[in-house]
Amino acid sequence: MSGEQTPMCSMDLPEVKVKTSMAGRCRVFWYEQYVQPCIVELVGSALFIFIGCLSVIENSPNTGLLQPALAHGLALGLIIATLGNISGGHFNPAVSLAVTVIGGLKTMLLIPYWISQLFGGLIGAALAKVVSPEERFWNASGAAFAIVQEQEQVAEALGIEIILTMLLVLAVCMGAVNEKTMGPLAPFSIGFSVIVDILAGGSISGACMNPARAFGPAVMAGYWDFHWIYWLGPLLAGLFVGLLIRLLIGDEKTRLILKSR
Amino acid sequence: MSGEQTPMCSMDLPEVKVKTSMAGRCRVFWYEQYVQPCIVELVGSALFIFIGCLSVIENSPNTGLLQPALAHGLALGLIIATLGNISGGHFNPAVSLAVTVIGGLKTMLLIPYWISQLFGGLIGAALAKVVSPEERFWNASGAAFAIVQEQEQVAEALGIEIILTMLLVLAVCMGAVNEKTMGPLAPFSIGFSVIVDILAGGSISGACMNPARAFGPAVMAGYWDFHWIYWLGPLLAGLFVGLLIRLLIGDEKTRLILKSR
Amino acid sequence: MSGEQTPMCSMDLPEVKVKTSMAGRCRVFWYEQYVQPCIVELVGSALFIFIGCLSVIENSPNTGLLQPALAHGLALGLIIATLGNISGGHFNPAVSLAVTVIGGLKTMLLIPYWISQLFGGLIGAALAKVVSPEERFWNASGAAFAIVQEQEQVAEALGIEIILTMLLVLAVCMGAVNEKTMGPLAPFSIGFSVIVDILAGGSISGACMNPARAFGPAVMAGYWDFHWIYWLGPLLAGLFVGLLIRLLIGDEKTRLILKSR
Amino acid sequence: MSGEQTPMCSMDLPEVKVKTSMAGRCRVFWYEQYVQPCIVELVGSALFIFIGCLSVIENSPNTGLLQPALAHGLALGLIIATLGNISGGHFNPAVSLAVTVIGGLKTMLLIPYWISQLFGGLIGAALAKVVSPEERFWNASGAAFAIVQEQEQVAEALGIEIILTMLLVLAVCMGAVNEKTMGPLAPFSIGFSVIVDILAGGSISGACMNPARAFGPAVMAGYWDFHWIYWLGPLLAGLFVGLLIRLLIGDEKTRLILKSR
Repeated sequence: MSGEQTPMCSMDLPEVKVKTSMAGRCRVFWYEQYVQPCIVELVGSALFIFIGCLSVIENSPNTGLLQPALAHGLALGLIIATLGNISGGHFNPAVSLAVTVIGGLKTMLLIPYWISQLFGGLIGAALAKVVSPEERFWNASGAAFAIVQEQEQVAEALGIEIILTMLLVLAVCMGAVNEKTMGPLAPFSIGFSVIVDILAGGSISGACMNPARAFGPAVMAGYWDFHWIYWLGPLLAGLFVGLLIRLLIGDEKTRLILKSR
Repeated sequence: MSGEQTPMCSMDLPEVKVKTSMAGRCRVFWYEQYVQPCIVELVGSALFIFIGCLSVIENSPNTGLLQPALAHGLALGLIIATLGNISGGHFNPAVSLAVTVIGGLKTMLLIPYWISQLFGGLIGAALAKVVSPEERFWNASGAAFAIVQEQEQVAEALGIEIILTMLLVLAVCMGAVNEKTMGPLAPFSIGFSVIVDILAGGSISGACMNPARAFGPAVMAGYWDFHWIYWLGPLLAGLFVGLLIRLLIGDEKTRLILKSR
Repeated sequence: MSGEQTPMCSMDLPEVKVKTSMAGRCRVFWYEQYVQPCIVELVGSALFIFIGCLSVIENSPNTGLLQPALAHGLALGLIIATLGNISGGHFNPAVSLAVTVIGGLKTMLLIPYWISQLFGGLIGAALAKVVSPEERFWNASGAAFAIVQEQEQVAEALGIEIILTMLLVLAVCMGAVNEKTMGPLAPFSIGFSVIVDILAGGSISGACMNPARAFGPAVMAGYWDFHWIYWLGPLLAGLFVGLLIRLLIGDEKTRLILKSR
Repeated sequence: MSGEQTPMCSMDLPEVKVKTSMAGRCRVFWYEQYVQPCIVELVGSALFIFIGCLSVIENSPNTGLLQPALAHGLALGLIIATLGNISGGHFNPAVSLAVTVIGGLKTMLLIPYWISQLFGGLIGAALAKVVSPEERFWNASGAAFAIVQEQEQVAEALGIEIILTMLLVLAVCMGAVNEKTMGPLAPFSIGFSVIVDILAGGSISGACMNPARAFGPAVMAGYWDFHWIYWLGPLLAGLFVGLLIRLLIGDEKTRLILKSR
């Protein structure tokens, strides 16, 4: 899941035969280290957000938040388990920010990751619009976050977006990047964090936790009221968790203070 | 989960004692490489489709799509975890097609796999009919896909079958065949892809994603309206994902372009 | 999960110091190989059946079969993951029969396992009765299987118990005993088989699949109508799966035919 | 997950270079062995109890106990998978007691762990109060346990809290501390034990199983009726399971009797 890269071509491809030209090796290295991760972030975000939006548009009234919670969480979990080895499996600008802060993603890849994720979100939301019956699409505001309607809900919604996203980002950073706590269950842990976040906070703020998930449907439905909440909350949470790990709970390699060297 | 086989008998059975006749070893090799996988695809498809059909026939009206989604997805996940080491764990002609395209299944096994899967689907659907109360069986059209009733639904249904199956096939090919992204959680990832696909698209196209799942109940209920959608959509998706991996997101061994050799 | 034991004391305790008396080592060996597994089968069966019975007694009418399905399946899965290394994690006479047939449990342990499981079931059902409000207990027949009321339901109920139990037993034998297909996800695979079996067949036969689960509540509620179905069905299924593996789908070590030696 | 620590600084940091001062190494050792686990227990308990309380406050009436059961169980499972390597992943005074009894946590850390967990519970419950609409908060008694209303319910509620907590504590101690039965699925096994406990006993005693989960909301809502049940029951269960493992089902290293040495 970690996005760290070895800086030299030759170190990454020990099995390559000597006669292969250096240029060929570097081209492959460059493709696999810079281009493929962005493609994968785009494809994964598109599929995740397609599933998420449709599960909201087609939600049954009898089952509370269970269907959207399971659809978002299990979809994210499986896509991370499936594609995470290539890109780190973020599919979320707030996650990429936090992983960059703790040193798990090269800073120069942050903006390309964000663009891929937002573009993926756009594709996913567009596909969800295309296959949905029109009436259901508009009843659900196209799965855009329309739960905050008045100014007085803003503080609670922003607060809960920050806390919910902190759990998600913590699951990614500690479960899949921080070496002391990394483990094989991380992809599903991250998915479960989305399930429980939606079950806990879905009826207060919508439990978005992901600017790309907010952005795609907002474009498709033309719905931008209080849209900034779903950028500010998750990004602040990414920053907070990054600092928490850097200062307090990271391992010796990640922590900036209380090191033996 | 990979279906790749070593081409020589002796390589596969290093523990065999010297005195064993070459003929005996080859007979075992042939059985384990060609016959047993087909038996397992048949048994697994029959059990998976039996569970799937019954969960639709006996579905409760109060729980939306949760019961069929969990029944199909968890059943597929557990059967892959249980039997996947023998056959690769496809139980779906569209999956077998995609795995063949990316080189994970010998081409000569594709047709035997398809026949085993369809025959397994037939057995599963027949058993589901035998144990169901007749009234419930016919109320649910015997779990055949009867959701598309008019010509104008066809485009949406076909489109969504393609996208949903792409997620499933991607989970199989990237999680269990492509070496760079293979991982121990793959069987459950694949099962989760079926859960989220049904939660997202179950009320639009039925979220079949599997010609064998469509075929068995169609025979048992004699219901063939728009049946071709559930062959064309999944098989196209298998082809698309195969190409996507061969051209863009596969590892160096699987990718056909941008290789260092 | 496998119940196989090394026949000699010394092989099992390589770390024991030389000065330890042979008698002491053998006493420990005997305790860990014969007594502890039976204790664990009893404790695990009691907890599993306590959870299972209560989830039926306290079931909510709005959620179909989801609550009992998840309670039985996840409870079995977690108890196998937690205690399986000691006893093999059966907690079900039908499973112990099948594991014995394929050589994963010493024949002399089969009867002690059965007694432990039945006694555990009795304890679990008794505890469930003690903590339940009396009215709810009797409304649910104490979680005994009371779904078959007429002779004409018998054939369907017996048939479905056989097929459902086959899936469960297959998940145990292939996922946790047969070496070629063993894997780390087996405990949860087995739990998932119980979830999907209840979702598929819970409203036809009750989806018992376990004589110990049937026996305990039957004693506590004094309800014995058609009780034999829940012994005959699961035990037949255990036998069928044992034969299927011995003859067709087991690995070379387990299979009785088509061996190279 | 085990909380055992090596007693000497140098043993834990073999990679440290010789020129690092002994004082520096010991300061890091002390931080990572004593301070960081308490921070992590506080952060994890706060997040777990925040999710748990909100899932009760915002629960939908149509879905029985499914939403709170999944929210509590999956949240605990993911937080243990994410943070368990640092502190052992208890987040529950009853669990810390049992782990201490079987030798998996230094006795001198028990009180600091308890304080961290209770303080974490307070923070989690306070945050849940802050983000909840006031009417919903008070309708749910702020997620405090208000299910026992009369003296005659006490025996059943206490009894069930003991049994339910025994399953949870057994999953922790046998799945993550006792070496013979430890396994990679333990974090999710523990989470599943919470899910099934709530599905089975949620409508009898509330299925608390955790004094920290009881304490935080009780403070926030000022609700203390029968509060002692949720301390006595879980702590007794922790003690019982500790003794069961020490005397009967622990491995040779953990067991106090029937040892070869």
